[in-house]
Amino acid sequence: MAKPEPWRLEARYYPVSIDIPPRYQDLDTLGHINNVALAGIFENARVHFNHSLGHHPADLGVRWLVAAVDLKFVAEAHFPHPLTVYSAVGSIGNSSWTIIQAAFQNGECVATCDTVIVMHGPRGKTTIGPELRAIMQNKMPLKD
Amino acid sequence: MAKPEPWRLEARYYPVSIDIPPRYQDLDTLGHINNVALAGIFENARVHFNHSLGHHPADLGVRWLVAAVDLKFVAEAHFPHPLTVYSAVGSIGNSSWTIIQAAFQNGECVATCDTVIVMHGPRGKTTIGPELRAIMQNKMPLKD
Amino acid sequence: MAKPEPWRLEARYYPVSIDIPPRYQDLDTLGHINNVALAGIFENARVHFNHSLGHHPADLGVRWLVAAVDLKFVAEAHFPHPLTVYSAVGSIGNSSWTIIQAAFQNGECVATCDTVIVMHGPRGKTTIGPELRAIMQNKMPLKD
Amino acid sequence: MAKPEPWRLEARYYPVSIDIPPRYQDLDTLGHINNVALAGIFENARVHFNHSLGHHPADLGVRWLVAAVDLKFVAEAHFPHPLTVYSAVGSIGNSSWTIIQAAFQNGECVATCDTVIVMHGPRGKTTIGPELRAIMQNKMPLKD
Repeated sequence: MAKPEPWRLEARYYPVSIDIPPRYQDLDTLGHINNVALAGIFENARVHFNHSLGHHPADLGVRWLVAAVDLKFVAEAHFPHPLTVYSAVGSIGNSSWTIIQAAFQNGECVATCDTVIVMHGPRGKTTIGPELRAIMQNKMPLKD
Repeated sequence: MAKPEPWRLEARYYPVSIDIPPRYQDLDTLGHINNVALAGIFENARVHFNHSLGHHPADLGVRWLVAAVDLKFVAEAHFPHPLTVYSAVGSIGNSSWTIIQAAFQNGECVATCDTVIVMHGPRGKTTIGPELRAIMQNKMPLKD
Repeated sequence: MAKPEPWRLEARYYPVSIDIPPRYQDLDTLGHINNVALAGIFENARVHFNHSLGHHPADLGVRWLVAAVDLKFVAEAHFPHPLTVYSAVGSIGNSSWTIIQAAFQNGECVATCDTVIVMHGPRGKTTIGPELRAIMQNKMPLKD
Repeated sequence: MAKPEPWRLEARYYPVSIDIPPRYQDLDTLGHINNVALAGIFENARVHFNHSLGHHPADLGVRWLVAAVDLKFVAEAHFPHPLTVYSAVGSIGNSSWTIIQAAFQNGECVATCDTVIVMHGPRGKTTIGPELRAIMQNKMPLKD
């Protein structure tokens, strides 16, 4: 569990972003935004990102299951300044893909999140179709 | 983000465990226990595990900050069967350590979690003292 | 919003109870169990109570929608002592009923909750059938 | 637990409002925004409302404790349309006051919330000072 690669803390590489205000419930007894609350904020950004792909899993008769989540906390985040979460597709496999994200507050990266999602049909893992794959490739990190 | 090592799915290697019943709020629209909810369940087990170390950070004038959380989901978990979360100290560095965990439901491992915790004093990272280090070493995985 | 009636703070009047351990996430910046977290704990006890009625709404082709929740906080609750939530059916109308609850910690009542639930079918409110009504009547507060 | 009074569903009577986007975690197995999640959304709006009063309790050496929350659900709320929560001071007593709120989605009132807050000092209930009382009176519902 090394630190995130430096480019992961640069907003300009991510094609999609969303502003998410923190809530009082995100705070814990230390008075900062709790790490599990940040996992929920990344999840919320991911759901919006998935919607932007335009292929809702229920419409395709499949389920997109989260297989792994890898969170790295770079700085403490506080209430009530809004968080901006940036998202991209990190890699695309046969039946799974990775969404890579970074959350910023007041212009500073506070955390990164890598999520592995696996597509499951009625009989287990399902291959990502060519149309969805092309859309995903279009959401990979931007080049300099 | 490879799969967890096989031994991580074996309860017998972890020195500490706690039963945590799921709550209705842990469920998401897919009807299973949500991945962020599982992160919260692991956190709750971690707080109990930390209490068992007997050195409350506030008493030591330090803060234990979560620097990274790496979750791997092995099987879907459901309501209302209780989860048993097993915990151990995975490794101990100069000012940080890793807590390794596995959650079971109905005798089956459903997820693992690796958490890096860093000890912060008033002037940043603080070295783990010898007494706490000895206690942590006593909570490392059990040998066969 | 007056105080709860004195008998509502007496565990012996409620026919059903469940132990629910608090979680670290239930705490807020004041270091006590947050009022919204307690609402979630009451909900969780309610779901178990509803299961005990033996008529799952999905099996009946209806939905049980929460129409109102009235929470009164009597004392502060703390981590990590378990909460015991007591539940009863308070009243039964044509298509709605009330679940009345009280949460205890260390033998002291910390909060009460009154919830109005309405049964909805495909065309709106649906009458409670005689079989379910009889089961509900059997869960009303116990007499001295 | 009667229905809210009709004027409570009219946004124009409330002096303060805030937009709060729902999160994926607010959804429950019925696919709508959960009632406990709405309680958390009202709380978040309340914290912002309290900040707008300009007298932070910690600065005054007191705590503002929630004594009662009365929620009425008027219509189902859905993801991902933003909620607008309107707030006002409903009444002011000696050491307690009521915050009255209404949440709207797509221009329709989905829920109301009445919260009783009590000011506690080191020796229990504390009288609301004249300066804070004047500020609160200025946040009471607007007249037609």
